[in-house]
Amino acid sequence: MKVSLNQKILSRNEEAAAKNRQFFAEHKVFCLNVISSPGAGKTALLERTIRDLKERYAIGVIEGDIETDKDARRIQAAGARAFQIETKGACHLSAEQVHNALKMIDAQTLDLVFIENVGNLVCPSAFDLGESGRVVILSVPEGDDKPAKYPGTFAGASVIVLNKIDLLPYVPFDLSRVLADIHTVNPQSPVLQLSAATGEGIDAWYDWLRRHLEKKQP
Amino acid sequence: MKVSLNQKILSRNEEAAAKNRQFFAEHKVFCLNVISSPGAGKTALLERTIRDLKERYAIGVIEGDIETDKDARRIQAAGARAFQIETKGACHLSAEQVHNALKMIDAQTLDLVFIENVGNLVCPSAFDLGESGRVVILSVPEGDDKPAKYPGTFAGASVIVLNKIDLLPYVPFDLSRVLADIHTVNPQSPVLQLSAATGEGIDAWYDWLRRHLEKKQP
Repeated sequence: MKVSLNQKILSRNEEAAAKNRQFFAEHKVFCLNVISSPGAGKTALLERTIRDLKERYAIGVIEGDIETDKDARRIQAAGARAFQIETKGACHLSAEQVHNALKMIDAQTLDLVFIENVGNLVCPSAFDLGESGRVVILSVPEGDDKPAKYPGTFAGASVIVLNKIDLLPYVPFDLSRVLADIHTVNPQSPVLQLSAATGEGIDAWYDWLRRHLEKKQP
Repeated sequence: MKVSLNQKILSRNEEAAAKNRQFFAEHKVFCLNVISSPGAGKTALLERTIRDLKERYAIGVIEGDIETDKDARRIQAAGARAFQIETKGACHLSAEQVHNALKMIDAQTLDLVFIENVGNLVCPSAFDLGESGRVVILSVPEGDDKPAKYPGTFAGASVIVLNKIDLLPYVPFDLSRVLADIHTVNPQSPVLQLSAATGEGIDAWYDWLRRHLEKKQP
């Protein structure tokens, strides 16, 4: 009973995800689903990215949070279109919510859409939103055991951002262990070490974005 | 359909939670459900607490993680009984899982049982485990916007631990904003500022535990 209902919810989600995927292909929009724990720096990374790349690309952001529109306001202040989804308790975004939000930000006129999922390292990874790729962010103060403890989330990433490397001197964190554990579950995706706060290492992230945006728009 | 099934799952959980609650009352066990984001310092707080209080109280820990028994091994090394539940994808512990784990650690012979829930600031707060109280941990590097963004979790806390205060000099964090936002959703529960890593402020946590343990065992 439980399984069949979950399958029903998933299959409804899959249908909406397929529509989103078709929308992105049709309008040549590159869409990234950004997943992390609360406070790993999703919004901070997007703010800096928008400030640095908005002259070059048309960028929009769909924000997911349990409550408040704080993040959408931060994104708008950085200079991008943003639409906030308040899930009112739900622990992840659904493809249907994203489908509606795409209209609100006129996504067909954009090059790059970020979906900032609800801060949660578990649930969002089970829901396909139709995205072109998935960014998983791990921040240094969360600790070096997270890739082993949440392997499914890291396995599904197109790119892993290791954020807040400016805090490495202040917390115990075994970088080689993290890289090895990520490699075990996801040997093909790059791991980018950076600080969204200071800008250190950010160029590798912009290179990754540029390469993938160019592939989408030859 | 979705709602009625969720209600069914919840009501089955409520039944198991009621059994757990009765067990804790009968055996005079004080049980705390510990909830936070991944990496906020749940295990670190429990390790230090066990090292400092194990001569005084018999302590056991039920550990919840998606994968690995890393945390149970850390707890055992600190000197307490521990049982690991690997949820294999589920984003929270259920009262039934806890019910089985209580047997595995001979909980009726303990004074204090910690349930370290899956690292997730959303889902665990919706599931009553029959606990005596709820500890919500927020760590400084997660940022000062979390109480406003996850109000339900903070509203349900018996005590809020603000952990990693040793990192305050290195990250932007408006302490007065956090205290005000917590007070808005939960005016009655204390907020304890401490560092499980350095031990700063830990005595207020031990005082809180002692007062509640004495109430349970007059």
